[in-house]
Amino acid sequence: MKVGSEHFRTIWETSDALETRAVEIIDQTRLPFRFDIVRMETVAEAVHAIMDMLVRGAPLIGATAAYGMALAMRNDTSDENLGDAYVNLLAARPTAVNLRWALDDMKNILMPLEPHQRLKAAFARAAEICDEDAAQCSAIGDHGLELIRGAYEKCGRSRPVNILTHCNAGWLATVDWGTATAPIYKAFAAGIPLHVWVDETRPRNQGASLTAWELGQNGVPHTVIVDNAGGHLMQHGKVDMCIVGTDRTTRTGDVCNKIGTYLKALAASDNSVPFYVALPGTTIDWSLRNGKDIPIEERAETEVTEISGLTRGGDIETIRIVASGSNALNPAFDVTPAEYVTALITERGVCEASEIALAALYPKESKI
Amino acid sequence: MKVGSEHFRTIWETSDALETRAVEIIDQTRLPFRFDIVRMETVAEAVHAIMDMLVRGAPLIGATAAYGMALAMRNDTSDENLGDAYVNLLAARPTAVNLRWALDDMKNILMPLEPHQRLKAAFARAAEICDEDAAQCSAIGDHGLELIRGAYEKCGRSRPVNILTHCNAGWLATVDWGTATAPIYKAFAAGIPLHVWVDETRPRNQGASLTAWELGQNGVPHTVIVDNAGGHLMQHGKVDMCIVGTDRTTRTGDVCNKIGTYLKALAASDNSVPFYVALPGTTIDWSLRNGKDIPIEERAETEVTEISGLTRGGDIETIRIVASGSNALNPAFDVTPAEYVTALITERGVCEASEIALAALYPKESKI
Repeated sequence: MKVGSEHFRTIWETSDALETRAVEIIDQTRLPFRFDIVRMETVAEAVHAIMDMLVRGAPLIGATAAYGMALAMRNDTSDENLGDAYVNLLAARPTAVNLRWALDDMKNILMPLEPHQRLKAAFARAAEICDEDAAQCSAIGDHGLELIRGAYEKCGRSRPVNILTHCNAGWLATVDWGTATAPIYKAFAAGIPLHVWVDETRPRNQGASLTAWELGQNGVPHTVIVDNAGGHLMQHGKVDMCIVGTDRTTRTGDVCNKIGTYLKALAASDNSVPFYVALPGTTIDWSLRNGKDIPIEERAETEVTEISGLTRGGDIETIRIVASGSNALNPAFDVTPAEYVTALITERGVCEASEIALAALYPKESKI
Repeated sequence: MKVGSEHFRTIWETSDALETRAVEIIDQTRLPFRFDIVRMETVAEAVHAIMDMLVRGAPLIGATAAYGMALAMRNDTSDENLGDAYVNLLAARPTAVNLRWALDDMKNILMPLEPHQRLKAAFARAAEICDEDAAQCSAIGDHGLELIRGAYEKCGRSRPVNILTHCNAGWLATVDWGTATAPIYKAFAAGIPLHVWVDETRPRNQGASLTAWELGQNGVPHTVIVDNAGGHLMQHGKVDMCIVGTDRTTRTGDVCNKIGTYLKALAASDNSVPFYVALPGTTIDWSLRNGKDIPIEERAETEVTEISGLTRGGDIETIRIVASGSNALNPAFDVTPAEYVTALITERGVCEASEIALAALYPKESKI
């Protein structure tokens, strides 16, 4: 997607020769107030990027880990170094499913090769993983575009389509396009007038900082609202549809996503607003039948009690916003039961949030 | 209620002689990080306190306005000065209903009196208004206490009662006790183990800054959560009841309160959690039948895009938290339809959120 007038992915190779090739990323901890590109030349730098959340979002974490393996091969293509890189990268954020998937994939491809073949193969496979992710998101966008087009037709092409999104399931969380944002970018490119309500998304505020920023850079009309406001807007007919992402989806269509998603799904249901969830098939956990069985990560309470932003002097400052002596609890995700999900938008098409519909789209994967 | 070990109301007279008597308030713009007491000696200072939100909350605004009239009488008890004070105080926050009510009440009492009688009468009536408000809130507390006691019995006295509240309908918004917090303080004083989930309450964060602070000062166990988290906690049985306040209530029981209240009511309904609204009868707008007819104030977008808090250096700093170039929309209230309100807790007792039940409690007021 675009940053200013330039096209970017969230991760890319420098054009140097294979032996000195580096990988660059956007330091997302500095967004939206700084656009800093960080160069990675070693596996340690890739571990740091994942651990300290310079990159975040499951697909991008996977892509970064794949490139971390490639960078490890620059100096030492031995089995031992390959194994060390795998272990160190896996430990960077142990809960992300895509991280393990990408690392296993790289290891399975590299291990059987002669050491001298590994560097080239590693970069080739990492690039392929990125391309696959971008293609998958693009396909989600193509399918979701039709839903937005439908809403535009439904209102007689009389006004822009209002879409509400929560958190950042944007291109910044993937290699390109994003998941929830892909239909938005595709519809915008197709000339369908639209406007996005961006939930601030407390805590961590990925909506106000990342989603608003990337929509702005791509010229998509949008307005930031507090997480409390979406229900009111739906009551007053200001939302035509919600599109959100998901971190994990059960085989029955329950959706685990950033905390607060469930509240928006309830409001959408109460006001007959379609509630769509965009996802690549890889986020479906076929071993799970009930969303209640998804363990919910509790994160540091400082994510609630403190917040960072830009001072009038132009510095990035962290301030405390909760009364001293008061504690906070910080569950990071909630589960939206399938009954509140109007449809799932996957790279293979749009389907009902149900076991039968998902199994029809993913016949092979669903047989476990 | 208590601040440290001392008992405070939100507004009080100094003990000086009548001619030099001043009124003191807590500067709520500095909470929770500073506890500053501000002395008011003139009507201009009372106007400033209301306009710049040193005091907020409809009942406390009314009480402050009443004292503003009394302070005006210190120097000049003429009809002209009485009229000027009325006009200036009314303009301080023109939308608050209690402000006009308190000013009309003071004017109606003072105007028929001889000028030399007015100073004493003004202070006496202002004190009475404060006492009436405190008594009303105390009665709300007594009635609501029984609901909390019921929840404690229901769980077999096996664990603390978990109560979720939104925004600050606390003693800081009234003269004493608060509305939504009154049952909590009464139950806590009665020895019922309880714990309060405090919604941060974006924007303005009155939950994280004011409710958490006042509960903490009074020793009430509580935990701050982001507004997104309440639904998840209800799904997991961590909330026994919600108690919130209201800014305006229709004669049919629709409730207009701080933005986001509606989302919590939906989640409570979805999880069979009782959702209570605490209110003095004065907030009922008997002229309104449908909550959709309540005009919703849109406030400055900087309340969304900027936030204030305490730096590590101990200063109060304002920072921007939304991507530059992105706009925000800031509706301040939403309406929760009566069907999602389990019961109303008034100073006259607990009743169903319906026209029949409200008219039974307020037979005289409902006949308009």
